[in-house]
Amino acid sequence: MPLETLNQWKCFGGTQSVYAHDSKATGTRMEFAVFEPAKSSDAPSPVLYWLSGLTCNWENFVTKAGAQRYAAAHNIVIVCPDTSPRGDTVPDAADEYDFGKGAGFYVNATQQPWSKNYHMYDYVVGELPTVIEPHLSNPVSARGISGHSMGGHGALTLALRNPDQYSSVSAFSPIVAPSQVPWGEKALGRYLGDDRATWAAHDACALIAQQGWSGDILVDQGDADNFLENQLRPQLLIEACRDANVPLELRLQPGYDHSYYFVASFIGDHIAWHAKRLSA
Amino acid sequence: MPLETLNQWKCFGGTQSVYAHDSKATGTRMEFAVFEPAKSSDAPSPVLYWLSGLTCNWENFVTKAGAQRYAAAHNIVIVCPDTSPRGDTVPDAADEYDFGKGAGFYVNATQQPWSKNYHMYDYVVGELPTVIEPHLSNPVSARGISGHSMGGHGALTLALRNPDQYSSVSAFSPIVAPSQVPWGEKALGRYLGDDRATWAAHDACALIAQQGWSGDILVDQGDADNFLENQLRPQLLIEACRDANVPLELRLQPGYDHSYYFVASFIGDHIAWHAKRLSA
Repeated sequence: MPLETLNQWKCFGGTQSVYAHDSKATGTRMEFAVFEPAKSSDAPSPVLYWLSGLTCNWENFVTKAGAQRYAAAHNIVIVCPDTSPRGDTVPDAADEYDFGKGAGFYVNATQQPWSKNYHMYDYVVGELPTVIEPHLSNPVSARGISGHSMGGHGALTLALRNPDQYSSVSAFSPIVAPSQVPWGEKALGRYLGDDRATWAAHDACALIAQQGWSGDILVDQGDADNFLENQLRPQLLIEACRDANVPLELRLQPGYDHSYYFVASFIGDHIAWHAKRLSA
Repeated sequence: MPLETLNQWKCFGGTQSVYAHDSKATGTRMEFAVFEPAKSSDAPSPVLYWLSGLTCNWENFVTKAGAQRYAAAHNIVIVCPDTSPRGDTVPDAADEYDFGKGAGFYVNATQQPWSKNYHMYDYVVGELPTVIEPHLSNPVSARGISGHSMGGHGALTLALRNPDQYSSVSAFSPIVAPSQVPWGEKALGRYLGDDRATWAAHDACALIAQQGWSGDILVDQGDADNFLENQLRPQLLIEACRDANVPLELRLQPGYDHSYYFVASFIGDHIAWHAKRLSA
């Protein structure tokens, strides 16, 4: 499976790359970004997968979060996929920022016309690691996953469903219970259909209640986030983790909003947190 | 002079703001950005002015450089003006990325039609400090200046001409001798006219030869920069500083290009360097 290098920049002593490839999971050309610290040995290195939020592609996190500094310091690779399939042949909801392109919600759509391309769950969990990991300078020692907003939802649900693949999970401003909030009800209803029983496999709170999580979870949430009460509802995650005896550190950060200024302010904490767990 | 707050975000414990005001210097509405660390006392604080490069406005540095982390750590304010006047009434060279809007070159244009609005020298040196500094949480203890590419040219020339105003100066990938390179010959020729004698006041190498600089200078330059040989020519600055006995630390950074990935990689060094000099 050939991987095309679209761009590379030296950054904090390592390399920030952007690649493209033809994806089997989505049936489209997909772009993603990778930061690799300077190679210092042949020892296996941890990889952190970062999932972005609504309207984003790989570029938002890569240019705005300042994560490369911390990834270089902790010798951790960061892989940033897109948030949906792309291209003129992919069905879209052009006037809706929260559905269609830029809003794949990390599920495998079962409903027409979305089911042809919108397989971001299979793409991120299954295909992307097989595409990028053999291409890295060092073997992979362990995988963590994190993300922002819709990507925080993706990080939590993908980790909870694949505990053998992901050894650590954290999130910024995640949609913790998509079955219970407007963004999630819209996206899961249209991608998966009206049977809400199928939604639970993509709802972090439902998954925690059903099967728990063997590690701990770190979540940062701004208390000045416009989406806090209506879309994010972190209290539901607190309750689900409490009931399932999952150790959750949820930090309500005073004055911070939903922007990348917030993510940038705390991404260093998250990378250090993942690095500790992934090298344990 | 009323200052309109366009946006504010909490970031690294401080506040990233974007303001707009009606500028006397340019005769236009101007936007600029300010990062203020969390207020910890009433003591005077240093301010670093950051000048951006061709095609940029305040946003590039603010979203891509990751400078807020270091500004917060060193308790230093960062002020980021635009690179030119803006608006439908401002003359432009629409097809030229290196002239007109986004390319003010930090001079006062004397030639028609540019002389009506293109007064970025007066704006940055004279007007902007009087607009923003009384608005800051703390009095200003000292001012430094830095910038990238065309903004590195601006930082060097504004500091050299105003040593009482700027106590420290550094640059990334600066245009060090605009009189001798295509970007500069085009911009100075059209803004200032054909008499090259008028260009010397906007040429860092010429200014250093003419009047020196009482402090030291830090410059970072990527050796994989596409503009290195044709537009930037750091050797000219090395020679000018050597001849004038100005202490210059010019770091040729291997593998780095002209992008903000390069700036982000070393902005922490620059902010620490300015903080040391501005608090001395």
